[in-house]
Amino acid sequence: MRKIYFTPGPTELYPVVHEAIGEALAGHVCSINHRSSEFIDIYKHADKGLRELLGIPDGHRILFLSSATECMDRLVQNCVERNSQHFVNGSFAERFYRTSLELGRNAKAVKAEHGHGFEFESGYSFPEAEMICVTQNETSSGVAVPMERIYRLKQDNPDALLAIDIVTSAPYVKPDFSMVDAAFFSVQKGFGMPAGLGVLIANEKTAERAHKLKSKGVNIGSYHNLITLFEYADKFQNPETPNVLGIYLLGKVCGYLNEYGAEKMRTETEVKAAELYKAIENSPALKPLVRNPSDRSMTIVIADAGDRQKAVREELLKSGYVAGSGYGKFKDSEIRIANFPMHRVEDVNVISEILSSTT
Amino acid sequence: MRKIYFTPGPTELYPVVHEAIGEALAGHVCSINHRSSEFIDIYKHADKGLRELLGIPDGHRILFLSSATECMDRLVQNCVERNSQHFVNGSFAERFYRTSLELGRNAKAVKAEHGHGFEFESGYSFPEAEMICVTQNETSSGVAVPMERIYRLKQDNPDALLAIDIVTSAPYVKPDFSMVDAAFFSVQKGFGMPAGLGVLIANEKTAERAHKLKSKGVNIGSYHNLITLFEYADKFQNPETPNVLGIYLLGKVCGYLNEYGAEKMRTETEVKAAELYKAIENSPALKPLVRNPSDRSMTIVIADAGDRQKAVREELLKSGYVAGSGYGKFKDSEIRIANFPMHRVEDVNVISEILSSTT
Repeated sequence: MRKIYFTPGPTELYPVVHEAIGEALAGHVCSINHRSSEFIDIYKHADKGLRELLGIPDGHRILFLSSATECMDRLVQNCVERNSQHFVNGSFAERFYRTSLELGRNAKAVKAEHGHGFEFESGYSFPEAEMICVTQNETSSGVAVPMERIYRLKQDNPDALLAIDIVTSAPYVKPDFSMVDAAFFSVQKGFGMPAGLGVLIANEKTAERAHKLKSKGVNIGSYHNLITLFEYADKFQNPETPNVLGIYLLGKVCGYLNEYGAEKMRTETEVKAAELYKAIENSPALKPLVRNPSDRSMTIVIADAGDRQKAVREELLKSGYVAGSGYGKFKDSEIRIANFPMHRVEDVNVISEILSSTT
Repeated sequence: MRKIYFTPGPTELYPVVHEAIGEALAGHVCSINHRSSEFIDIYKHADKGLRELLGIPDGHRILFLSSATECMDRLVQNCVERNSQHFVNGSFAERFYRTSLELGRNAKAVKAEHGHGFEFESGYSFPEAEMICVTQNETSSGVAVPMERIYRLKQDNPDALLAIDIVTSAPYVKPDFSMVDAAFFSVQKGFGMPAGLGVLIANEKTAERAHKLKSKGVNIGSYHNLITLFEYADKFQNPETPNVLGIYLLGKVCGYLNEYGAEKMRTETEVKAAELYKAIENSPALKPLVRNPSDRSMTIVIADAGDRQKAVREELLKSGYVAGSGYGKFKDSEIRIANFPMHRVEDVNVISEILSSTT
């Protein structure tokens, strides 16, 4: 049976990924030496394509790790001696927060209820925070923090580093990197690739912080500390043999999207999201989990389906669409529908029809 | 032009890997949820196949990390509070040693010259060592430590954990895991897979050590600490979304080798290695880097080619064979030829002919 994955990730592979894997196998990409000029060209190609796609300035390095979870770990270990400040409104923000606690840091959190945004109106001041960590697009709750709110945080707390989790919003989201010190994602979401590659975009200030911590005797880790990662990235290499195929595929996906038109992809994402939310609102049996439209993610659309959840997912599956269940304790009552660049408008039309006709 | 990689890794992909990637794409392996029963089955299949292939007992967990370098990092961070003891006879053993130093541990090293083994005759006693780290097969120098020597180390130092790097000897090597607490490899070597997966085989004692360190307030890391990895491995899952395709392919390669016959593969490896060493000895222009036959690796065969190195590698390339250069400062004078299970005897015959006729 035909199956198309609209799951939050791992998700449907980008069609270009299928082709590119074939090219990689024919071109011995998985056999070349990771210190060779051939590998360096692959790294450069991915670096260039991602810079163009997300508007990443030269000062920010593009570092290849293994997962977004590892990015959280390394950012805290390298940039926080004592205090990190988190915004927690779901399981992945919670993971960032817990990572800091597990690493023995004094992590603090502003919390929001499931499906709700934060009270940004009065501003936030965190004089002690060395790093402010925001899950810009929370995959478990479908809440997105508007980028303007995040820039405001940076303006109000200029001495703290600002790190954002864009795991399920990239490449739709295009942050202003003059306001963001670090951002990270994994590739099995919006980039439609096989899992096993985390991408960390980090500026000089993060590396300076790592140097400072190291000089104070803080343990910043070994092979994947920011100092080492920066040194190798400046040679378009990794400390260890990385996921070469993943880096190759990332370059191909970025190249495809840049050629297709990044802004066109972004507009389409918004159009598809609007259609999905409207369909959920139109159904008498469903409601959008995120009530406030300005808090809604464009890429993770969540329907609170109550006891109709199983039936709706089965109905979608009859047409070949695999939608995600809710996360954690909402597993059986919510439906998470990903709206990534590889998800075609024709399929979103069919899904929306099924959703809106759910009674 | 046809190219066959005889490089130490990344190396030639196993033919079964090409097929299995096609099956994985058709079967949506890269899109399934990493908490689903489908993923758990993939993990179980790899786990079962690797246990059979390497004779891994139930008490040892098979953990999926991202690289062998990460395995070194996690073993030190989780099992060593103060003192680690290393055997250093090449660049990868040096990396294990340096990892411990970078993590702030008091690492000590027994050293051997490039291309030489260690003086095991009189035995070694390391009363302070919490972990003894041996690079069983040193990829940079082609020196292998006989497993009997390694077991003797464990017998002489029963209170220390014994961790071995089998990065380029697995799956040829089949350690007696009753004598080995931890072993690790990466898959882009003897398993002929795309890079991006590290495999750590570790027993209960390593996790007990991690618990002990944690209870003493030692920072054992966050998502990939051994306690968390063990907890997830017991559910056949990973803390983060892992390299699902890599785990799938590992299961396929193990399944293939088990069916082919692991002992047959091991015998063939020895036959091919003998042929390569003989060819190098027969050439008036080449000599085996490792003089003592009992120190020679079966899987990384190194010829000291002096100023003939470039010419020999070019001659091999004319027949389609990509051989590795020397490592580090021996880049231009040594030739490293991998002898992994996917390397066919017919090709080894041709390579041996070219080598032995080198003048």
